[in-house]
Amino acid sequence: MEGATGRPAKRVADSITEATRIVRYEDINGFGRLFGGRLMEWIDDAAGICAMRHCGGMITTASVDNLEFKNPGELGEVLHITARITHVGRSSMEVRTDSFAEDVATGERKLINRAYLTEVYVDEQGHALEVPFGLALETDEDKAEWDAALMRKGMRAARASGGF
Amino acid sequence: MEGATGRPAKRVADSITEATRIVRYEDINGFGRLFGGRLMEWIDDAAGICAMRHCGGMITTASVDNLEFKNPGELGEVLHITARITHVGRSSMEVRTDSFAEDVATGERKLINRAYLTEVYVDEQGHALEVPFGLALETDEDKAEWDAALMRKGMRAARASGGF
Amino acid sequence: MEGATGRPAKRVADSITEATRIVRYEDINGFGRLFGGRLMEWIDDAAGICAMRHCGGMITTASVDNLEFKNPGELGEVLHITARITHVGRSSMEVRTDSFAEDVATGERKLINRAYLTEVYVDEQGHALEVPFGLALETDEDKAEWDAALMRKGMRAARASGGF
Amino acid sequence: MEGATGRPAKRVADSITEATRIVRYEDINGFGRLFGGRLMEWIDDAAGICAMRHCGGMITTASVDNLEFKNPGELGEVLHITARITHVGRSSMEVRTDSFAEDVATGERKLINRAYLTEVYVDEQGHALEVPFGLALETDEDKAEWDAALMRKGMRAARASGGF
Amino acid sequence: MEGATGRPAKRVADSITEATRIVRYEDINGFGRLFGGRLMEWIDDAAGICAMRHCGGMITTASVDNLEFKNPGELGEVLHITARITHVGRSSMEVRTDSFAEDVATGERKLINRAYLTEVYVDEQGHALEVPFGLALETDEDKAEWDAALMRKGMRAARASGGF
Amino acid sequence: MEGATGRPAKRVADSITEATRIVRYEDINGFGRLFGGRLMEWIDDAAGICAMRHCGGMITTASVDNLEFKNPGELGEVLHITARITHVGRSSMEVRTDSFAEDVATGERKLINRAYLTEVYVDEQGHALEVPFGLALETDEDKAEWDAALMRKGMRAARASGGF
Repeated sequence: MEGATGRPAKRVADSITEATRIVRYEDINGFGRLFGGRLMEWIDDAAGICAMRHCGGMITTASVDNLEFKNPGELGEVLHITARITHVGRSSMEVRTDSFAEDVATGERKLINRAYLTEVYVDEQGHALEVPFGLALETDEDKAEWDAALMRKGMRAARASGGF
Repeated sequence: MEGATGRPAKRVADSITEATRIVRYEDINGFGRLFGGRLMEWIDDAAGICAMRHCGGMITTASVDNLEFKNPGELGEVLHITARITHVGRSSMEVRTDSFAEDVATGERKLINRAYLTEVYVDEQGHALEVPFGLALETDEDKAEWDAALMRKGMRAARASGGF
Repeated sequence: MEGATGRPAKRVADSITEATRIVRYEDINGFGRLFGGRLMEWIDDAAGICAMRHCGGMITTASVDNLEFKNPGELGEVLHITARITHVGRSSMEVRTDSFAEDVATGERKLINRAYLTEVYVDEQGHALEVPFGLALETDEDKAEWDAALMRKGMRAARASGGF
Repeated sequence: MEGATGRPAKRVADSITEATRIVRYEDINGFGRLFGGRLMEWIDDAAGICAMRHCGGMITTASVDNLEFKNPGELGEVLHITARITHVGRSSMEVRTDSFAEDVATGERKLINRAYLTEVYVDEQGHALEVPFGLALETDEDKAEWDAALMRKGMRAARASGGF
Repeated sequence: MEGATGRPAKRVADSITEATRIVRYEDINGFGRLFGGRLMEWIDDAAGICAMRHCGGMITTASVDNLEFKNPGELGEVLHITARITHVGRSSMEVRTDSFAEDVATGERKLINRAYLTEVYVDEQGHALEVPFGLALETDEDKAEWDAALMRKGMRAARASGGF
Repeated sequence: MEGATGRPAKRVADSITEATRIVRYEDINGFGRLFGGRLMEWIDDAAGICAMRHCGGMITTASVDNLEFKNPGELGEVLHITARITHVGRSSMEVRTDSFAEDVATGERKLINRAYLTEVYVDEQGHALEVPFGLALETDEDKAEWDAALMRKGMRAARASGGF
């Protein structure tokens, strides 16, 4: 199987990463709500593992884009984070994370955060390496994410050249 | 669907819990190996979430039995923990956890720990409640685990009466 | 003094926040480099304190935008994070954070991360409140940041309507 | 003095280990009760130090058996953990831990957990070494624990061969 | 038994507190040595528990005096901290802590820190209460420490009036 | 510029260190008040960074003197710690830390702790090195602190020879 990049491909499902946690006192502020910074740490962990599974080696986080808190998390809630590859560049991988608070009584999940992280495949000295695998775009969602990733990439370039 | 206990049943798959973590410096000893106690903490978290998903409420850990380290974990490894219900009693649930170290280059998983935890469904005062759902035994593995759980239960009773 | 929003104003300097930390083993990966997620947690703390000082109350992080790692951080380094208000909306404040690794021998600071966070002024129930103070734009840099913030705001709107 | 194993012996008192802690917010769940997993981490620490004191070197935890929560621990309580050697095998040591919640007003201690851990004496590569010291069984309790340890050992063998 | 303060007395042994810990990566700097601040945290915990055991209630730390690092602590070492009451005032208790690094191979303990902390018996609002128990001075060491505590008290007063 | 020690000098301002933190659940006891030991850890960090900035290298904490809690800290408060050099000896530096709780609504700061720490400039083996820079005493406060540091030094000597 060949990926969108012309390289041998892995599927999105090959690297999808699930992390589950309970929100504890050390994760909440004085009003009982999950700290944004704590969730960001968990998101970065999940996105990093997802990218490691795709490239098969070490990664470093290069950027976070469009990280949005949709709903608060609360003490005692089960948090469920999924991370999936949305785009593969030369040495970078874009990963989307979705973080849900789960109601264990009903099984319902409420989206509390979505974010896009760019992870770079690196060697032990931190130098960028070429990601050995492209991404097989199997579903319409896979393709839509890939196209949106290109939009985000263009926007980052526009922003960099515009200096904002 | 009715469970082995005569109560309305949930399937094992309804509460199966996956947790993924990277082993960090704070998790290893001076020789680079994962602390047993740290893995136990993660195992208890995963087993607790699994039991919460089955009973639909709060739980407390009652006992740990037959927790065995099979292989060491190491700095930088991806750890993958799965927790699944093996037996449901009146107010208790037995959960089996399997902890794997994953080689991201090959995708291979090496079992590093297996444990059986007993979780009790409780109210806010910590009083035991009846678990509202039995367990649908769908596969041979489900049935074998249920039977083995009865063996473990018998052995715990023997031990308690023998005082060892 | 009246701010860009028509409300009584505080200056950027009134809420500027400095945080200093040493990178420890618990903050680095197996190759000795600072975890992105750990720095994000520290950035969120600094941005939150900065916004609390501007609005005079509680805040919650709404989004992170354009967070970029420019250079790695390393074990034992002194990290210096500054957070400053760049824009004030009705109930939101945009905060820019700059994170530097400092060479204590020479005093030189190397930029390792820049990020823009949106913080919302909230009451104890988490409901958005009107920020009581505008921002006095005193320097050219203050004005340039305000204008760039408007560009970022427009881009977020474009992205939201475009669904990418 | 010669131990039950024929090797030169240390007494139980030579390695007995006491650990004292206060239960903090980071140790409790949303209902104010000590997490099982946190106590397990503390127990593993105390058992490990006890075994290190007996063998005079590095150890690794091999298994946990019959860990039982007898009573809940609560925020602000003083926890007192004692760890004592109960059996010495070729390269393994069995350690019993008793965890108490102490009422500082009366000095009374309530047992909240008892567990048996098997610790293995290892070199820096993690290979098992022969424990250089046997155990001097001085008291009736020492002897009863040694005999019960043999029962537990037999039961573990039965379980392993029975596959439950 | 009546204490040096005229109140009913407890002995030093009634509240003596032992804490044992292993030095981990999260406790050391980039050169493998225990952070002073981490040891201070452990010392404060042990001193607080010791004072709680003497007064039978809640305490708050009022001051630390003459805390001296005598030797470094290192990764993987067993640390042993003892805390003992040296003086009882109206609402305050002075506690001496001695921190040792233990060589598990030989059982030798090397003093790495000694400190004197003043703990105050308080109610839930943080108001000082009268310590209900004096201190029975049973040994020459108990008496010498009591007298030295008076010297330290005098010196603190001299310093406060001299403003240095 | 030459310092009080005859060596080339740095100013107090060259190494002044500001650390800002929010008090979280993990930092408070069961009555909502900041643990002394936690603040000591933060103070030691700030004092260490301040001394590293002055000597331009690695330091180790040698002693803490006259650490006094003036007021309690509380959940959710912004803590502001400043650390400044007060004296430079051959290989040691004395650092004063002032810790404030800040009311974000009014900007008022309440002193909650003052402490004096002695930090020693060391090489990688932990051996003391000569601090390459003296201290330029520019303000009356700088001079008064230097003189008070000499008083504290004399008192420490008196105490050491008196054995209390």
